[in-house]
Amino acid sequence: MSYRHPGRDQIRIEDVLSALGNRLRLDAVRVLDAGGEHNCTSVLNVLGVTAKSTMTHHWRVLRDSGVIWQHPSGRENMLTLRREDLDARYPGLLDAILTGATTDAAQTPS
Amino acid sequence: MSYRHPGRDQIRIEDVLSALGNRLRLDAVRVLDAGGEHNCTSVLNVLGVTAKSTMTHHWRVLRDSGVIWQHPSGRENMLTLRREDLDARYPGLLDAILTGATTDAAQTPS
Repeated sequence: MSYRHPGRDQIRIEDVLSALGNRLRLDAVRVLDAGGEHNCTSVLNVLGVTAKSTMTHHWRVLRDSGVIWQHPSGRENMLTLRREDLDARYPGLLDAILTGATTDAAQTPS
Repeated sequence: MSYRHPGRDQIRIEDVLSALGNRLRLDAVRVLDAGGEHNCTSVLNVLGVTAKSTMTHHWRVLRDSGVIWQHPSGRENMLTLRREDLDARYPGLLDAILTGATTDAAQTPS
């Protein structure tokens, strides 16, 4: 089994924004931004999500919007942030979003 | 009648991204980015939306997320992009999004 992904030119900004307009998905992308390939379980552990099934939908949204690569490896799913594609297509967008997420996280909830 | 708006410090990036993760709302914000106050009807005309009621929900999403100011004036609603607040809170974000939307619009749909 392998997943379908949009090509770089098929990515649409409203899909990227919608995909990242969710706290859990945004946090997952912050974890993936450390670079390289991550297995699904390790990301869930960092996020404190115990049920793998919770994330199945979220990985699909991130994958379909062109934000991540996802491919199965044995019984695991391997995940990679498509930073090169996103930076090429929307310069500065991902950095502005990740910096913004850090700004929010540093602020005591009002 | 007046609308409630989040203060600058109450804006959350996932709400902004979710609000802009929709083609019609993103296009509306591109119109408002011309600066100043716009009345609802004029924005709808530019967007080619004929039914005012279509946008009622969308204005609420943009307002609740902190992307626009909305206030009634007579029988109209006046709309202003909260660029100063967004730029202060998330430097570079709005510009990256609007540039990205222009990139997408310039590309022939695949």
